[in-house]
Amino acid sequence: MKDRKLLMIPGPIEFTPEVLRAMGMATASHVAPNFIDAFGQALERLRQVFLAPDGQPFVVAGSGSLAMDMAAANLVEPGDRALVVNTGYFGDRFAAILDRYGARVTQVPALVVGDVPPLEEVEAALKEGGYKVMTITHVDTSTAVGAPVRELAALGRRYGALVVVDGVCSVAGEEMRQDEWGIDLALTASQKAIGVPPGLALVVAGPRAMDAFYRRSAPVGNYYADWTQWLPIMEAYEARRASYYGTPPVNLIWALNVSLGQILDEGMDTRFARHRRLSEAFKAAVAALGMRQVPVAHDRAASTLTAPYYPEGVDASVLGYINQEGAILAGGLHPAIRAQYFRIGHMGAVSASDILATVGAIERGLQRAGHRFEPGAGLAAAQGVLA
Amino acid sequence: MKDRKLLMIPGPIEFTPEVLRAMGMATASHVAPNFIDAFGQALERLRQVFLAPDGQPFVVAGSGSLAMDMAAANLVEPGDRALVVNTGYFGDRFAAILDRYGARVTQVPALVVGDVPPLEEVEAALKEGGYKVMTITHVDTSTAVGAPVRELAALGRRYGALVVVDGVCSVAGEEMRQDEWGIDLALTASQKAIGVPPGLALVVAGPRAMDAFYRRSAPVGNYYADWTQWLPIMEAYEARRASYYGTPPVNLIWALNVSLGQILDEGMDTRFARHRRLSEAFKAAVAALGMRQVPVAHDRAASTLTAPYYPEGVDASVLGYINQEGAILAGGLHPAIRAQYFRIGHMGAVSASDILATVGAIERGLQRAGHRFEPGAGLAAAQGVLA
Repeated sequence: MKDRKLLMIPGPIEFTPEVLRAMGMATASHVAPNFIDAFGQALERLRQVFLAPDGQPFVVAGSGSLAMDMAAANLVEPGDRALVVNTGYFGDRFAAILDRYGARVTQVPALVVGDVPPLEEVEAALKEGGYKVMTITHVDTSTAVGAPVRELAALGRRYGALVVVDGVCSVAGEEMRQDEWGIDLALTASQKAIGVPPGLALVVAGPRAMDAFYRRSAPVGNYYADWTQWLPIMEAYEARRASYYGTPPVNLIWALNVSLGQILDEGMDTRFARHRRLSEAFKAAVAALGMRQVPVAHDRAASTLTAPYYPEGVDASVLGYINQEGAILAGGLHPAIRAQYFRIGHMGAVSASDILATVGAIERGLQRAGHRFEPGAGLAAAQGVLA
Repeated sequence: MKDRKLLMIPGPIEFTPEVLRAMGMATASHVAPNFIDAFGQALERLRQVFLAPDGQPFVVAGSGSLAMDMAAANLVEPGDRALVVNTGYFGDRFAAILDRYGARVTQVPALVVGDVPPLEEVEAALKEGGYKVMTITHVDTSTAVGAPVRELAALGRRYGALVVVDGVCSVAGEEMRQDEWGIDLALTASQKAIGVPPGLALVVAGPRAMDAFYRRSAPVGNYYADWTQWLPIMEAYEARRASYYGTPPVNLIWALNVSLGQILDEGMDTRFARHRRLSEAFKAAVAALGMRQVPVAHDRAASTLTAPYYPEGVDASVLGYINQEGAILAGGLHPAIRAQYFRIGHMGAVSASDILATVGAIERGLQRAGHRFEPGAGLAAAQGVLA
């Protein structure tokens, strides 16, 4: 029997064979024509995947936190005011990062874990005025809460803030239309719905964000993240010229270009719809198995992952059983409820077959943990959405 | 005929098949037992490769510049004095990075390109007193100059400075004994003699460097590089426990662990000797072909790369011929002499066969560029050292 288990955590995820082959290719020089072309093409494709035709992409070796750092360090000058729409762990992190670069940070937190703050509260804070930057976590990986980015971005724009979206668990999975929705900067990491092993920080900055950067008077607080260095490099590679600042992560960028090609072959609208449909199927299964979810309402739930509470009498040890049954899931992350829930990522190249296999493994795991339910109930509910 | 060309630039270099296979493996969860074990083992092995038994290793997604950033940001507080022993392009960079984090930087530059500053001048600067940090570029990738790290480190220690060695083009190739030589922090990047595709910043901090970090009063200026976040992660993985701050670059860390295993199988002393011998062979060939080198003297030359000046009547176009003949080399990088020289990396898994193949391609390339010499003279000179 095949012993390969499905990797269904909120990143890293299952990658396509073509992406993994690019990872394992003999590394080229960072100034080799075939690499220059792949890097240039990846930059062009990022713009299409972010739906940001006027955006400036940045591809730099690092984790998603570097992408957040890059946003904060390049846009904020000491004393600037920043508003953080906080829906969990990663809102806390953005606040800490903004603070590090001298921003005066105000947070508008969700009233309960699993919710987003009321739009009126966000607007009230914005009205108070003077925010240079507003950050939104599109999908909080710690809670599976999806924020209404479109509405929040419109609010931010109305009150003159630069709208920054942490799309680490959303870009190329959850619907996000950077230009149309008025998002000034969106960021993600490679190992999420973009579908590339971890190691790349990805940022697309719109014209207003670049303007704010050009108009800085203070130097960028973080040297490695400073666009002063990276912008000429990105411009050079996109113009199919080599240029050197730091050695680019050749294999990861090859893999990125392959994955972006696959994403665009599918098409962004089709891809968003697939993620929604598979998420609906998975969430139907979770409900049919008698589990509540962390997001307080269906329209607060992300489509890239699901965060169910353990049923009564079941704890994190069930994840070991589910693993033995063939699916690798993640435990809780939000400090307030860490031991009470678990997380399943279903993004990127994920298929209906993966969803059913995962539901099946969860059913068998729950059964071994002593949870009582009708075997097959989760599968039937998922199939009801998929069929 | 095989059309694979040898990648003989100063990084990325030729990687072993085992390393490339690790790159292309299906990515595991960052909390999977097999990944935890590989990460923990890589941290232990880094300590052995740096010859720093008491060192604290850091492995973070990023380029070599992030490793430099990490050193400066974590060790320096605003107002601290820093001394940069400047032997080229990367000394300039370290000065810029230190300045960014508020250090008052003094530079002791080499008097001419291709040299290192006299030890007396470094000592005179140190005597002036009050330097918290002193940085040395072990091998300046822009000039192929190797600095006398052992002597410089002893000087730095004598005058109470934390000795920081940029070993980007040296660690695991050039002889460097972190603990024995009194180096407080050494850093490198994955794509050099460590033998892993680009994308990892690698730092080993000794006890005095960690003490300086613990005793800080100002927060670290760079959030992503802040050891406050990374130290608990490194400690956890080395204790074979998972922990989360940012998603580690799983495939690169697998590849790192494979390469470190291969390096330790060879043994550090054997490896240093192999690099010296292959470098001697290559440099003998360069001389036999009538080319001068950028380093002003043999004892100023690194053993991980060679930087020859083009012979009279030959310019950078010869690199195209040499590429067609089977070896990919790099152009000049140091701004003062960029168009007058080229660079050949010979580090990591490089073999005597690679050296001869590269010399052969250079001979044929020079011939096509119109340079006059006895065909085979370079090969014979190299073989004279190798045999």
